Amino acid sequence: MSTDRLIYLPLGGAGEIGMNAYVYGYGAPGKERLILVDLGVTFSDMDTSPGVDLIFPDIGWLAERRDRLEAIFITHAHEDHVGALAHLYDRLGPVPVHARAFTAHLARARMAEQGQPEKAVITASPWPETIEAGPFKVGFVPISHSIPESSGLVIDTPAGRVVHSGDFKMDTGPVVGEAFDEALWASLAEPGVLALTCDSTNVFSPHEGRSESGLGPAIEGLIAGAGGMFVATTFASNVARVKTLAEAAQRSGRTICLMGRAMRRMIEAAVETGVLTDFPGTVPPEEVRDIPRENLMLIVTGSQGERRAASAQLAQGKYNGIELKPGDTFLFSSKTIPGNERSVIRIINQMSEKGVDVIDDDTGRYHVSGHANRPDLQRLHRLVRPRVVVPMHGEHRHLREHVKLAGEDGCKGVLAPNGTMVAITRAGAQVAEYVETGRVYLDGRMQVGALDGVMRDRIRMALNGHVLVNVIIDEDDEPLGEPWCEVHGLAEEGASRAPLVDVMEADLGQFMRRAGDATLTDDDKLEQGLRKVARQTAVSEIGKRPEVTVIISRLTAG
Amino acid sequence: MSTDRLIYLPLGGAGEIGMNAYVYGYGAPGKERLILVDLGVTFSDMDTSPGVDLIFPDIGWLAERRDRLEAIFITHAHEDHVGALAHLYDRLGPVPVHARAFTAHLARARMAEQGQPEKAVITASPWPETIEAGPFKVGFVPISHSIPESSGLVIDTPAGRVVHSGDFKMDTGPVVGEAFDEALWASLAEPGVLALTCDSTNVFSPHEGRSESGLGPAIEGLIAGAGGMFVATTFASNVARVKTLAEAAQRSGRTICLMGRAMRRMIEAAVETGVLTDFPGTVPPEEVRDIPRENLMLIVTGSQGERRAASAQLAQGKYNGIELKPGDTFLFSSKTIPGNERSVIRIINQMSEKGVDVIDDDTGRYHVSGHANRPDLQRLHRLVRPRVVVPMHGEHRHLREHVKLAGEDGCKGVLAPNGTMVAITRAGAQVAEYVETGRVYLDGRMQVGALDGVMRDRIRMALNGHVLVNVIIDEDDEPLGEPWCEVHGLAEEGASRAPLVDVMEADLGQFMRRAGDATLTDDDKLEQGLRKVARQTAVSEIGKRPEVTVIISRLTAG
Repeated sequence: MSTDRLIYLPLGGAGEIGMNAYVYGYGAPGKERLILVDLGVTFSDMDTSPGVDLIFPDIGWLAERRDRLEAIFITHAHEDHVGALAHLYDRLGPVPVHARAFTAHLARARMAEQGQPEKAVITASPWPETIEAGPFKVGFVPISHSIPESSGLVIDTPAGRVVHSGDFKMDTGPVVGEAFDEALWASLAEPGVLALTCDSTNVFSPHEGRSESGLGPAIEGLIAGAGGMFVATTFASNVARVKTLAEAAQRSGRTICLMGRAMRRMIEAAVETGVLTDFPGTVPPEEVRDIPRENLMLIVTGSQGERRAASAQLAQGKYNGIELKPGDTFLFSSKTIPGNERSVIRIINQMSEKGVDVIDDDTGRYHVSGHANRPDLQRLHRLVRPRVVVPMHGEHRHLREHVKLAGEDGCKGVLAPNGTMVAITRAGAQVAEYVETGRVYLDGRMQVGALDGVMRDRIRMALNGHVLVNVIIDEDDEPLGEPWCEVHGLAEEGASRAPLVDVMEADLGQFMRRAGDATLTDDDKLEQGLRKVARQTAVSEIGKRPEVTVIISRLTAG
Repeated sequence: MSTDRLIYLPLGGAGEIGMNAYVYGYGAPGKERLILVDLGVTFSDMDTSPGVDLIFPDIGWLAERRDRLEAIFITHAHEDHVGALAHLYDRLGPVPVHARAFTAHLARARMAEQGQPEKAVITASPWPETIEAGPFKVGFVPISHSIPESSGLVIDTPAGRVVHSGDFKMDTGPVVGEAFDEALWASLAEPGVLALTCDSTNVFSPHEGRSESGLGPAIEGLIAGAGGMFVATTFASNVARVKTLAEAAQRSGRTICLMGRAMRRMIEAAVETGVLTDFPGTVPPEEVRDIPRENLMLIVTGSQGERRAASAQLAQGKYNGIELKPGDTFLFSSKTIPGNERSVIRIINQMSEKGVDVIDDDTGRYHVSGHANRPDLQRLHRLVRPRVVVPMHGEHRHLREHVKLAGEDGCKGVLAPNGTMVAITRAGAQVAEYVETGRVYLDGRMQVGALDGVMRDRIRMALNGHVLVNVIIDEDDEPLGEPWCEVHGLAEEGASRAPLVDVMEADLGQFMRRAGDATLTDDDKLEQGLRKVARQTAVSEIGKRPEVTVIISRLTAG
């Protein structure tokens, strides 16, 4: 009997919403041929990763086994699925990257930007066509989501079939792109399905998901009732929503202008690849000023309050020469992603100060989610009828709840957060191994490990402030002049009502005068002593324990 | 005719939810006698105020006029209403502080902690008793909220009556403390009311508020269905909720333990001041380990995911020797305050990893808000029948919406964010003046102005990292030895695949060797030059523009 096995190993995306990267393997243990599904990013925040540009999954495990990697498959063009590809490709390639036309178009542009080979990205045709990759036969199965040409994957292996849902919702009227095709998805179950690897994002949302096509009339009503300029924001990549907004504007007789580079790029890509047709005519930003406000509709980037995006710029002042005025309306046709609340609320309040009426997604009338809700997940379980449900694309709480939900449907569910290698057989799924995973930060142009200490240093400086102590020791191991310091991020004056720097320098001077040879000749001792004095002074003067850097310059005879 | 006028001036709380501080004045313009209603704090975050302990309103305007301040009134004991009192009292006092018994009890403890006179805090009896303070006569009118003995204020002046709602909801079954008394509040309108200064927190919540008393059965049902240990968290100060939780536990036959210092303090204060009676018996934390888990109910602090509170500690490991285990249930009987989502989600996921079933407030079945919703606000408008509604306690968007709502009720509304001095007359309310306001950070023991640059320096170090450059110039204005640097919060290696520090030192050394006398004799020029080189190296090596501190040590002959 063959010892070959089918394995599944999430390197990212199972334990967070973001940076998706799922490995499948087939072969003898330790010698499996591998494919990677998706390679996305997640975003930094001040609490854990200040100054970081992007966050990638740690693909160390896969990079060490790149000789066994047959292909990469990208399910759709969202950043959390494709955003790391161009940045990490040189650690995995050369290897073919398969994606459908719209996704491939955007992926190629990213590859070119990063100096990676565009031609590695191969345009895939949808199911029933399949792509061979070692022992795998993979097909892209259209499914509705909030970006065009999203796909689930059929992954056929000698051990049987795995269905990878990708990000999805069950929308039969998605406005742009393919509708959810129940018969097609049911047909995938025919040969029997070993495992369904399944989106878990909305497992806590109890009601059936709503269709994109239901939003148009509500948005049109809103525009019809608005007096001044009408501005709407949504995710740049939500091409269907941009179309819904634009069509509502058109029906209201307003001239449409798209603002924000990301949105213009997305719409262009959708038009070029034939995904988007019949998009209403737009005017470029420079023509907007000539149009009466009440005839205008701007569709802009920045639904998450991002500082540099069009929304935030409009909230603060001008963008492309256009300014918000009292009587204008601003619609968030989007959901605020947890963690972005403060940024979004900030711009809402700035707009309120300008007298703009802001409508957010609280009511759910002007936004629908791109992910399947709890009853939709159940429906997919029942259509695909897998032996095992493997929840992915969720935080730990989502995966755990999805396992429970699978149980309710009489399926086995397996909880496999990042790093959990699962062996999938006809008998079920067993944890085979735990693999080290984590995060890598793109900081400027460098990739920095999350545990390298770089972030720890930054966070400490931000929380505690920083003191620099400088002393010079002469050729005879005697202090030359007085120690002096410089402080950053600390109160200027403390309890003594004298500059903190002065008090600190006096205390350090005293320490130096009292220091014996044993200290003055030993850099480590001297540094420790000076650091301790600087900290003590800061604690007694201002009640803070700052980071302290000590610089000892020794003059040498010669 | 007298030129005396009645003024209202928010120094905090009108433009944010937090740090409430409302000034009223009566007298000749510029000579008004003043009272202050509430003096609260708000909380820091990494994005804007890393390392800061607390945030206070800038009371500079009032401190400069302390000779005109007659009294301070504290409506209730929430931190955002009383938390800054003890910290700022010495800039305003000596001045009497009036509060009802429970609030006064807690305020005195804080005053003592900060070395301020406890006896300045005077216990007030409720309306119809009043307190004279210069031209003002002020009465504490009981109103329901989420902490005992919350009060609105009747502020009678020679110009007429102002009603200050305080934080409130209309709860006729508040579990602890006084129910909302409609007849009492209607009676306040009898002499005619000039202005209603009114809570705006929930102006966007469309449905009538629900009563605290409705939660008990739902929580009891949840406990009855739980197998392992049951843990619930809520705001420590929500004494009614703690009682609701404890009574539900008692009815389920569970032994109750309170955990977290803030919660124990609050419950003790409520018992000592007679506000809380019939509280079920509890056991101290050290006895918990002897009780079977399925007979236990912990009520703990940390509903906002605060790092040091009981919830976060339990999520991570042990707290008071107690550990969460699979099959336990954890209930958030609380709302996540916007901005705290990430912290709360983090501990939910940590508990999920421990196999704990977490129930949050998504459903609204286990939590009710302490603030009046939109229809409740309308009801108060109609009961009090003011000439003017002055929205307070809200972000700009809330104040603005509340002005609109007042208009719907046929009242004038006046939009008065922090710093807007409003003169209130029988004819309405006019903006009289704009006063500078802002935020002050408590950082360690020092108060730092928000614009002092301390935070800017911290944030820059966190975003960009920090480089320190050190050079020594000898008595002849020649470099002594090589320049050297130290970096914090930056990648160790860059494009050259050599340590960043080494590349930087080489570039700086080259700069020094090429520098002429004009540079070497001029500290400013030398510093600028070195900073520029260090930045250029960082940009080309790692793609970051760090903060750079240059230290030039000059040896002097003698």
